[in-house]
Amino acid sequence: MTLAELVAAVEQRSAGRLAATVEGERERAIQGVAPLETAGPAELSFLANLRYRGAVATTRAGAVVLTAADHAALRPSASVVVCEQPYAWFAFAAQVLERPAQRRAGIDSTAYVDPAAQVGAQAWIGPWAVVEAGAQVGAGCSIEAGSYVGHGAQIGAGTRLHPGVKVLHECSVGARGIVHSGAVIGADGFGFAPFAGSWIKIPQTGRVVIGDDVEIGANTTIDRGTMGDTVIEDDVKIDNQVQIGHNCRIGAHTVIAGCTGIAGSAIIGRYCQLGGASMIHGHITLCDGVVVSGGTLISRSINEPGFYSGPFPFMANRDWERNAAVVRHLRELRERIRVLERRPGSATDIEDSSK
Amino acid sequence: MTLAELVAAVEQRSAGRLAATVEGERERAIQGVAPLETAGPAELSFLANLRYRGAVATTRAGAVVLTAADHAALRPSASVVVCEQPYAWFAFAAQVLERPAQRRAGIDSTAYVDPAAQVGAQAWIGPWAVVEAGAQVGAGCSIEAGSYVGHGAQIGAGTRLHPGVKVLHECSVGARGIVHSGAVIGADGFGFAPFAGSWIKIPQTGRVVIGDDVEIGANTTIDRGTMGDTVIEDDVKIDNQVQIGHNCRIGAHTVIAGCTGIAGSAIIGRYCQLGGASMIHGHITLCDGVVVSGGTLISRSINEPGFYSGPFPFMANRDWERNAAVVRHLRELRERIRVLERRPGSATDIEDSSK
Amino acid sequence: MTLAELVAAVEQRSAGRLAATVEGERERAIQGVAPLETAGPAELSFLANLRYRGAVATTRAGAVVLTAADHAALRPSASVVVCEQPYAWFAFAAQVLERPAQRRAGIDSTAYVDPAAQVGAQAWIGPWAVVEAGAQVGAGCSIEAGSYVGHGAQIGAGTRLHPGVKVLHECSVGARGIVHSGAVIGADGFGFAPFAGSWIKIPQTGRVVIGDDVEIGANTTIDRGTMGDTVIEDDVKIDNQVQIGHNCRIGAHTVIAGCTGIAGSAIIGRYCQLGGASMIHGHITLCDGVVVSGGTLISRSINEPGFYSGPFPFMANRDWERNAAVVRHLRELRERIRVLERRPGSATDIEDSSK
Repeated sequence: MTLAELVAAVEQRSAGRLAATVEGERERAIQGVAPLETAGPAELSFLANLRYRGAVATTRAGAVVLTAADHAALRPSASVVVCEQPYAWFAFAAQVLERPAQRRAGIDSTAYVDPAAQVGAQAWIGPWAVVEAGAQVGAGCSIEAGSYVGHGAQIGAGTRLHPGVKVLHECSVGARGIVHSGAVIGADGFGFAPFAGSWIKIPQTGRVVIGDDVEIGANTTIDRGTMGDTVIEDDVKIDNQVQIGHNCRIGAHTVIAGCTGIAGSAIIGRYCQLGGASMIHGHITLCDGVVVSGGTLISRSINEPGFYSGPFPFMANRDWERNAAVVRHLRELRERIRVLERRPGSATDIEDSSK
Repeated sequence: MTLAELVAAVEQRSAGRLAATVEGERERAIQGVAPLETAGPAELSFLANLRYRGAVATTRAGAVVLTAADHAALRPSASVVVCEQPYAWFAFAAQVLERPAQRRAGIDSTAYVDPAAQVGAQAWIGPWAVVEAGAQVGAGCSIEAGSYVGHGAQIGAGTRLHPGVKVLHECSVGARGIVHSGAVIGADGFGFAPFAGSWIKIPQTGRVVIGDDVEIGANTTIDRGTMGDTVIEDDVKIDNQVQIGHNCRIGAHTVIAGCTGIAGSAIIGRYCQLGGASMIHGHITLCDGVVVSGGTLISRSINEPGFYSGPFPFMANRDWERNAAVVRHLRELRERIRVLERRPGSATDIEDSSK
Repeated sequence: MTLAELVAAVEQRSAGRLAATVEGERERAIQGVAPLETAGPAELSFLANLRYRGAVATTRAGAVVLTAADHAALRPSASVVVCEQPYAWFAFAAQVLERPAQRRAGIDSTAYVDPAAQVGAQAWIGPWAVVEAGAQVGAGCSIEAGSYVGHGAQIGAGTRLHPGVKVLHECSVGARGIVHSGAVIGADGFGFAPFAGSWIKIPQTGRVVIGDDVEIGANTTIDRGTMGDTVIEDDVKIDNQVQIGHNCRIGAHTVIAGCTGIAGSAIIGRYCQLGGASMIHGHITLCDGVVVSGGTLISRSINEPGFYSGPFPFMANRDWERNAAVVRHLRELRERIRVLERRPGSATDIEDSSK
């Protein structure tokens, strides 16, 4: 595919919203994508991080995607695709150039599809996959080796379950979804009532309902609702090993990085970004547009969009030992400051009034 | 089922320990449970959280479970089940009303059960499940699709392994247990001796031994002991994505929320509650009745029951940047306070004596 | 096996690098290993922790492994294997004494091995395992029940995939590796470009490349690179439920404890040790020999070997409530100290000069 053809293909794939021009060899053949420092003459690259600006002038890539301003400033050594949103343009181009995975259709002879299940046209049910009674697998789905679609579960058109995914009874995944290996959709929520020194299980009778264009990472778990449903809205992107408790709702276009845990009944808004290993308490609400740093515990509702943080800063262990010891006595320290401030002194009255 | 019949059924299921009376329509037909705000006339609800007290007066539920005091105070719009422990009563009622899952028995034609394994009466071995030689599966168990029961492993009567659970060789799970999809019981503990610049593996020859009435969440991992066993006592409830290291012991009735990690040889008492994403160091002991906040690292033994916390408080990122910078210098700050306190001043002697 | 035979076997297994002498009964028969407090007369034990020194004088073990100094100091009640590195010696001895697991070879009748895959001599492909086209499984490998080896993936000689492991297309695992149940090697990295209010997926076209002698814990996930590869070097040991993002590189001999998360493009040096539930930001570098405490977030590169920490110290909840409240105002506190320091006072000038 030539650069000129690639520009046309991205414009088409983006429904005409991503135009670009080529500065340099329009007929340069491009076969794939690569980082600036390792790309060769048949590969497309882009400026992933400002730290790599210098590499634009020396890359051996066949072409590089840049804004007009970067094109003017960076003296690229390659042909340039000039466009307004290089990262999005690059993403579409990489999709266009991706070597298509072997696409299979039909039901493998070793799969179990219950006679009372429905499987759409051009869907693939792989080796030792299970599709239980009442389940519906949409057209063009790929249910890969060892995956499980429970009773009455629904998988939307074009969705791919990688090997070993479990979508349990009555849960649904929307269209064009991607669920990575080991993810478990619809295990029981964690609910018990104390009684006479033991725990009585509360049956978890709700579902998990997942919108369209959702991606769910490997070994992520999303629990079914106690009563009512756990809901993941459209275009939510969830990384690996994320845990989402019963009756949560995750707003559309929100992104959740790996190892994050969201406790039951938390409501996360739209266009939020939760950093890796962040933790969200149960029964709280985050409004739209909240960004949480990695490793931060959010313990109460947030009503203002913005960037929130909370990890303890790391330091050399000997410094940490000393500082952490003081953390245990901060309130006493504040009291000692108050006492000092109450001492008579010539500058005191002025300073005090400024507080 | 009428309300009156439900009251009788709960009393029976609780072995006579949970009595209740109906205020209102004893013959009201109840088919399921639902939250106060969405329940309809054939559904039972209850007051899950004090914030929802107002909804008791407006719910369209067929019935609601309340204490006598709440019944008197809240002017419910529905019939009321009056009892002393509404949450436990509701849990039992939800169990009674739960639509029973399709109960299967027998060995699926695609399962592999070694001739030297034992499978009890009325047990179900699902598609592509594996039961290895020497394993014992108790009466009424359900070993679901793709689950694995290793050599010599034991599964107690009535226990359910959801699809894709692994119980590895020689490990045992007690009676009436529930293990959710993707859980791994009995992988090797993490033990290596350094030698000549490399790591020498210490064989992990112990087992995992799990008591009765234990629930284990999706993708949770419990490692086998190095020498001796990892032990989970009766009625322990473990949420999703919990990691329990080799040679730990978890006391009866303890509850562990999702994403918690417990390092090797930690001993957790009975009736403890570990919050989500809490972390417990290895080789320490928590006495009975310890409650740990979510996101807290417990780094040494706790000998007093009580509530322990340790997350860094979250805040707007700009505030965090400023405050976290000071955390790195707390010890210097304390020194500066000491210097100030040593300055001569009229009130100093009195204040100093109070420290 | 007698103690004398065991000494010879360990010397051979360690290629002559671990010599030892027996003080006591050289002909004592030893069948296994056990902790000091429970070991019997046919079992070998060792001093795992200094806290147990007293047990050396009372153990009923058949033999105990000690340094010459501990042998002289502790008056052992058992025969003693005297050597310079008791922990490494014990690890080798435990390997020698380990009851070998049932070793199978061949392809189970229920496994699926694509005709275009290669399986080496003496390898075992277990029930319902899948080996796709172009995959290579080395000699003596064990691909256990329900494991998946994707298109073009490579498994080195002698490597064991426990039940339910997924090694996805084009990824490779080196020789003598151990991968525990539920691990997922090669799921897509987490990469999306924002465009017109939605997320555009960046195809993840790299691989995961894993060296020799690597152990990977249960339910751990290692993502494939976006462009270029995620690399795990030789002799790396990774515990359960660890998440390693796309394009990370983990240096040889590094050890990563459970629940740790490493974000994309992080470079970890050789001989590092990451404590449980530690978190490493993306796009940073840790030099060789960095040790990180459990529960610590590393947010920027570390260029000095050493021990780094960062958890908030836990305390009783009522103390935490008070101290955490002050954490939110540390910067103001520092300002108030500065104001106090600026007050005139007889000792001030001297003290200030010391800062």
